[in-house]
Amino acid sequence: MSGPAVLQATQRRRRLVAVDIGSDISGIQGGKGVPKTEDVLRDIDDKFDIALGKLLELVSIQSISSEPAGKDGIVRAAEWLRQELSSIGLAADVIGTKGHPIVLARSSAASTDNKPRLLFYGHYDVQPVGDIGQWKHPPFEPTVIKEDGVRRFYGRGTSDSKSQLWTFIEALRGWKSVHGEFPAEVIVMLEGEEECGSPSLPDFIKAHRDDLTCDVAFICDAEMWSATQPAITTQLKGLVHERVTISAPNPDLHSGHYGAVAANPIRVLSTILASLHDDKGRVAIDGFYDWVRDIPDAVRQQWRDLSRQPELFADVDLSGGIAEEGYSPIEAMWSRPTVDINGITGGNQGPGERSVLPGTATARLSFRLVVGQSPETIRQRFRSHVKRMVPKGCRVEFEGHGGSSAVVLSQDSLYLKATARGLEKEWETPVVLRGTGGAIPLVEQLSNTLETECVVIGFILPSDAIHAPDEHYDSERLRKGARSWIRIFDEIQAQMPSQS
Amino acid sequence: MSGPAVLQATQRRRRLVAVDIGSDISGIQGGKGVPKTEDVLRDIDDKFDIALGKLLELVSIQSISSEPAGKDGIVRAAEWLRQELSSIGLAADVIGTKGHPIVLARSSAASTDNKPRLLFYGHYDVQPVGDIGQWKHPPFEPTVIKEDGVRRFYGRGTSDSKSQLWTFIEALRGWKSVHGEFPAEVIVMLEGEEECGSPSLPDFIKAHRDDLTCDVAFICDAEMWSATQPAITTQLKGLVHERVTISAPNPDLHSGHYGAVAANPIRVLSTILASLHDDKGRVAIDGFYDWVRDIPDAVRQQWRDLSRQPELFADVDLSGGIAEEGYSPIEAMWSRPTVDINGITGGNQGPGERSVLPGTATARLSFRLVVGQSPETIRQRFRSHVKRMVPKGCRVEFEGHGGSSAVVLSQDSLYLKATARGLEKEWETPVVLRGTGGAIPLVEQLSNTLETECVVIGFILPSDAIHAPDEHYDSERLRKGARSWIRIFDEIQAQMPSQS
Repeated sequence: MSGPAVLQATQRRRRLVAVDIGSDISGIQGGKGVPKTEDVLRDIDDKFDIALGKLLELVSIQSISSEPAGKDGIVRAAEWLRQELSSIGLAADVIGTKGHPIVLARSSAASTDNKPRLLFYGHYDVQPVGDIGQWKHPPFEPTVIKEDGVRRFYGRGTSDSKSQLWTFIEALRGWKSVHGEFPAEVIVMLEGEEECGSPSLPDFIKAHRDDLTCDVAFICDAEMWSATQPAITTQLKGLVHERVTISAPNPDLHSGHYGAVAANPIRVLSTILASLHDDKGRVAIDGFYDWVRDIPDAVRQQWRDLSRQPELFADVDLSGGIAEEGYSPIEAMWSRPTVDINGITGGNQGPGERSVLPGTATARLSFRLVVGQSPETIRQRFRSHVKRMVPKGCRVEFEGHGGSSAVVLSQDSLYLKATARGLEKEWETPVVLRGTGGAIPLVEQLSNTLETECVVIGFILPSDAIHAPDEHYDSERLRKGARSWIRIFDEIQAQMPSQS
Repeated sequence: MSGPAVLQATQRRRRLVAVDIGSDISGIQGGKGVPKTEDVLRDIDDKFDIALGKLLELVSIQSISSEPAGKDGIVRAAEWLRQELSSIGLAADVIGTKGHPIVLARSSAASTDNKPRLLFYGHYDVQPVGDIGQWKHPPFEPTVIKEDGVRRFYGRGTSDSKSQLWTFIEALRGWKSVHGEFPAEVIVMLEGEEECGSPSLPDFIKAHRDDLTCDVAFICDAEMWSATQPAITTQLKGLVHERVTISAPNPDLHSGHYGAVAANPIRVLSTILASLHDDKGRVAIDGFYDWVRDIPDAVRQQWRDLSRQPELFADVDLSGGIAEEGYSPIEAMWSRPTVDINGITGGNQGPGERSVLPGTATARLSFRLVVGQSPETIRQRFRSHVKRMVPKGCRVEFEGHGGSSAVVLSQDSLYLKATARGLEKEWETPVVLRGTGGAIPLVEQLSNTLETECVVIGFILPSDAIHAPDEHYDSERLRKGARSWIRIFDEIQAQMPSQS
């Protein structure tokens, strides 16, 4: 089924022309009377407080995708975004899926126009709050406070990923309001299931293949290198979630009676989890590294240079971590496959002590895959590994979630280069071409399945406490994030082939 | 401090006289006009529905000792019991401790009387409910239903241990109402912290040493051999609870970013838990078996005979269990030291998936000790074992609860023999002298510290779902339990030395 889609995408494709562009911002603008990029940037700055206020409104909507209680917030956030996208002149719809809806918006097609078609992706769903007791600030009541010299706001989704999608929506608004038209044909796709593995996205893409055909997809869900240096992510890991539950042949028993002789699912599970790594930090599942290629020397060299910069691990203490032997932290994070235990539950959860031999114990794991690893193969190999270790009489159940492959994007793309130049002009520093341990299933689907060119950028940082208590963001990165898109649009326009 | 107490207890002691007692029930009663044991038994039977109704009332009080929310139920249960004990003619008080109160009642002392002084111990606190979703019956709304040919009632504490204390209270009531006096001097002590390790009991016993001096303490918190065969427990294990929490140097992190390199407390904890046993099922903590003596041949033989009976494991499936190599299930349960993992918690607890590298993970463990093992030594050896395995940069915290040594009671005691004869008459079958994997800290304190003679009996069964969902009991065992005490009182009276 992917054949025709690829053909269609290829037919549609408008290639940029490689031209020698100077880095002088004022030199690339049109003549007198035509609005300049500076006018749009000024508009972004002038209306910034309005944009910020709206983002805080969006953050206050509890759009948690992985909990049933988040359903109402998901629906409200999708509708809120549909209205915002309509108000800036896009035709916007909330489109239902088997799971949470996708907000899809587009500019009116000018069929004779030779402009490229740009797709912007973001996600409006957020992670669960986790232990509310660990939050110092309420997760859904953001206010701007001055802290560490920046205007900061706290809340679940402030960084991941509501600020991200808001940068390009605000940029599109600003450009349109100054120029009277969008910088190109525009498609905006906002997902509501990213934080739970994007289960509905593959079917959605199949069903809306024509609507999503574009020249480049900007996937705005990635990180900067530091608070002052932008980055483009050129390789992403794949992701497989697995939930494994060990059950004893009996329900809960009194551990004083049967502890010495009856099966204890926590003991069984601990032994299984402890068996997942060898003493060199390698994953000890049979065949886990099949088809995994070693990191190319050129990439290793590029990353060795990055490793000398302190930014990446500035806010994290790696002591006690057990990384794979023979790889630097950056190499392990970006290019080596891993398995993490994300959660474990069994028996007495307190507060008091209870002499119980529990009937079941559950662990939640996630595998981060690299190029060459198939999500389904890894899933099956993990399950085989576990099954071999479950004692006779005990049962094991698996529940699989997600499943995406790793992606490595070409660093030669002209869209990527235009993006890099735009970012460099706004931030006045070179762009870092980086990898990530994170997964964005959409990039895999667009890039691997539809062969759509993808540019993965973003304006957040690990130190924003992504997925953690007291997630936060700051207004300056929001402002410069929106301005970055204006610079990128400008670069793309400058490189567009002459009209046919 | 225990010297004088032992002396005092010894001075007080009234030894029974060993006499050759026939097993003919009718033959041991007094002359005409004097109430007979049969009269008391009839009274128990006649008033049984009243007794049962009261027990259900007691079960409905949510006296959970290990949860702050149980405090109100604890206070109400203690007061309810004080009133009941007063109503049968005992002087009863609710006595505060640092933790939950103890109900202490006694018959009026007849100082010139040469009757023995009997102490009856039970506990009115119950285990937490655990996962309420696993209960088919409400845990605190007991009603009698006909099921499997018995009149059964469900509820937390029905079996462990409110029915137990109710057997002797009802027996004392019945005896007093027929005879006009109690069968001996009586002390009733009802504890409210048994399910959380009896933390206040040692201080209470010290402070009330004189009040508790007795000739024999009946500890009614043990099990029958089967629903039709009684048992006396002659050896108990010691108990140490430990809670261990591993913390990473960081709070929760995004596992997609740092999973490959930063410390994961669940991974660390799993490795530690998996290290607690070797591949022969032995506890692999250095020095764990120091001073542990092997099971005497005579005891092994006694238990070998019991092993041939199917009752003990009738309701439990031992498949998947990893018992210590070289020991039968009974030997492992009753006489080999063990460690169990009772609970584990870390990271994402659901319902959805969350890519989190948790900041902490906690396990709750309990050690079941045998004679020769000191609770504090085992605690420290466990902690040393864990500390050695915690990677640099991670932290470990311990929280200790409980701490009691194992006890082996003499099978030659005349009180034990009288009890055995009483039980045999009521149940018309031999009494099993058994061990248990369970711990009763009081037995250790009375027996080891005060050298008080203890008889450990009870009328519950593992199949009552003790500590588990849908805990239950049946009315017939309640009735025969109360009747058993009447038989025991009768045997004790028959064996009392003549008045001086």
